[in-house]
Amino acid sequence: MACNSSENIGKPIRCKAAICRKAGEPLVIEEIEVDPPKAWEVRIKILLTSLCHTDVTIWKIDHVSAAKFPRIFGHEAVGVVESVGEHVKEVKEGDRVVPVFLANCEECRDCKSSKSNECSKFRKEFFSVMPRDGTSRFRDMNGETVHHTLCVSSFSEYTVVDVAHLVNISHYHLPPHEACLLSCGVSTGLGAAWKVADVEEGSTVAIFGLGAVGLAVAVGAKQRGATKIIGVDINHEKFEIGKRFGITDFVNPSTCEDKSVSEVINEMTDGGADYCFECIGLASLMAEAFNSSRNGWGKTVILGVEMHGSQVTLNPYLLSRGRTITGSMFGGLKPKSDIPLLANKYLDKEFSLEGFITHEVPFKDINKAFDYLHQGKSLRCIIKMDP
Amino acid sequence: MACNSSENIGKPIRCKAAICRKAGEPLVIEEIEVDPPKAWEVRIKILLTSLCHTDVTIWKIDHVSAAKFPRIFGHEAVGVVESVGEHVKEVKEGDRVVPVFLANCEECRDCKSSKSNECSKFRKEFFSVMPRDGTSRFRDMNGETVHHTLCVSSFSEYTVVDVAHLVNISHYHLPPHEACLLSCGVSTGLGAAWKVADVEEGSTVAIFGLGAVGLAVAVGAKQRGATKIIGVDINHEKFEIGKRFGITDFVNPSTCEDKSVSEVINEMTDGGADYCFECIGLASLMAEAFNSSRNGWGKTVILGVEMHGSQVTLNPYLLSRGRTITGSMFGGLKPKSDIPLLANKYLDKEFSLEGFITHEVPFKDINKAFDYLHQGKSLRCIIKMDP
Ligand SMILES: [Zn+2]
Ligand SMILES: [Zn+2]
Ligand SMILES: [Zn+2]
Ligand SMILES: [Zn+2]
Repeated sequence: MACNSSENIGKPIRCKAAICRKAGEPLVIEEIEVDPPKAWEVRIKILLTSLCHTDVTIWKIDHVSAAKFPRIFGHEAVGVVESVGEHVKEVKEGDRVVPVFLANCEECRDCKSSKSNECSKFRKEFFSVMPRDGTSRFRDMNGETVHHTLCVSSFSEYTVVDVAHLVNISHYHLPPHEACLLSCGVSTGLGAAWKVADVEEGSTVAIFGLGAVGLAVAVGAKQRGATKIIGVDINHEKFEIGKRFGITDFVNPSTCEDKSVSEVINEMTDGGADYCFECIGLASLMAEAFNSSRNGWGKTVILGVEMHGSQVTLNPYLLSRGRTITGSMFGGLKPKSDIPLLANKYLDKEFSLEGFITHEVPFKDINKAFDYLHQGKSLRCIIKMDP
Repeated sequence: MACNSSENIGKPIRCKAAICRKAGEPLVIEEIEVDPPKAWEVRIKILLTSLCHTDVTIWKIDHVSAAKFPRIFGHEAVGVVESVGEHVKEVKEGDRVVPVFLANCEECRDCKSSKSNECSKFRKEFFSVMPRDGTSRFRDMNGETVHHTLCVSSFSEYTVVDVAHLVNISHYHLPPHEACLLSCGVSTGLGAAWKVADVEEGSTVAIFGLGAVGLAVAVGAKQRGATKIIGVDINHEKFEIGKRFGITDFVNPSTCEDKSVSEVINEMTDGGADYCFECIGLASLMAEAFNSSRNGWGKTVILGVEMHGSQVTLNPYLLSRGRTITGSMFGGLKPKSDIPLLANKYLDKEFSLEGFITHEVPFKDINKAFDYLHQGKSLRCIIKMDP
């Protein structure tokens, strides 16, 4: 639909959104109403969005009491500011922005510390509503509340996002496709390699799961000069794909025969990899990643969101031998300061984003993005909104 | 017994040792023969030794196939070089030395890296024999082999130690009691606070288990300017004792009523401690320490050696929130370079060792040291050899 922004300021906008009415069911494009932004909020017009694995994980969950339906998914995106609420100074109408699921208030103890990216002002566990007042800005045509997801909900032509979840990229000549990639998955992998693990030159790396996040870890590790970057994936095709991103060696758990993956990696690396990354979200694989790290300084970084609510079980003796396990949201990056840094690095050609976008579909075909990701066919499927 | 060293060089020495013939049974002082040192080995006369918890843990274990008896325990000690084997240049007859259970060859990749103290040249798992040739230097009066423990076996008037396990402290005016303390437990706690955790000024610390290691963590954290140092122990008397070492707050798990220890600590620290240390060796307590750490940058350091072979179970979601769990042997310290550093810091009065030695017994009463530690009565009991 056409929306002349000036005439909508302060009023609800009617537009199309892809609504999920039940866990695991296909999304349905419906008309919704999007309320104007309240104080500290920004209404944005989505240009491009893409499907991140975390959405698929949440989409499948119906056992979590806080999983509220109907809801609007989507948290990887780039958009343009349509209007801003009271107190918003950071962005103005027409600015190009990327929304991020992780808050960055820049005022709390965590935001002010270089050691954390876990904004403690907005540490909401579920994110089905706006973070400041706990209500929704979406309604369907029956007047029923439609819930937010992860404070972004980019599977809608318009969405409302708290300013703490927005990064202004107007001053960077970053094309929209690349901006969309940097809003979640790819940044997560790069940040994990650079900021959380701090991969050193000449080191060995093992990456469990070669989706977009895992391959972004490979890009980050390669840029740091890692000499052996082992990809672990049950999809054999991922090895050829992975080579383009820096993967040098491949382990397919389904063809390891009588050995465990960690035994194979310990042999390949003479005692374990310097850095291991779990990018799937399976507790058993997290333990296997940890077991694949070396004594002395082996560091395992958990990026996957555990899918089944399982606990990870570790041998404490291996911890005592100098191994470390840690994790992060968004690769340990602070959205407001680090996305601009990544944008600059990209524009300076320090790393490439080639190959991450494997598909593109119009908004009406959004369910295809779920199919591609599910079938392991896509890394990122860009969903293009109608202009 | 009297031993004129020059007449014994190259020959076995007959002396007294406290032998353990069966797991968990009292030690028996017997005559043994101690072979002369082979290449890269040093025979030392023990001046003082003390009982570390790790000995007690190993002493109780009889289910490990590699737990070999009869054996000689003891790995906290200070001694004087009696004679040296071929190739030994680092120490000479008459030098004062501390033996350390952890090897430090100074040549392998780990010894050369600042990130590791896990010498990869001598990474033996069990240590019932000399690390280089895999044989013993001890025999009882029936000619039966007596095994070593942790490459030190200081519960003997004379022992043979590989030069990789020795630190020469002849050039430091460190009194023997303090040298003995710095050879294991106290250094482990200080290293954990300073090197592994790298405790920052103004931070909050939770220490699980207030034995000598835990209290040394407190000394290290206090020296770094931690403002809240919470001690966790089921022995209520440890709070008064702990105050002298820097403990500011106390949690007794047996009086937490309906709350878990981590819930109590989360309340006391507004969301979790910056640094948590497990100094007991119980998998459940390791998990509780991890649960007591804060999101964003909370770091849990495992110092205890798990007593029951249990695995530690963690919630991966808490890892994703920026928490880290790691561990180390010997507080992450490299014996040959870091013990001299600690000696200098001690001599410069940067920290105090007062209060760690609670008991002293003659060698013949060595079993009392086990009793005191078992009953929670002692921090360190010095065992004094006959002059
Ligand atoms: Zn995502
Ligand atoms: Zn914040
Ligand atoms: Zn010890
Ligand atoms: Zn070494």
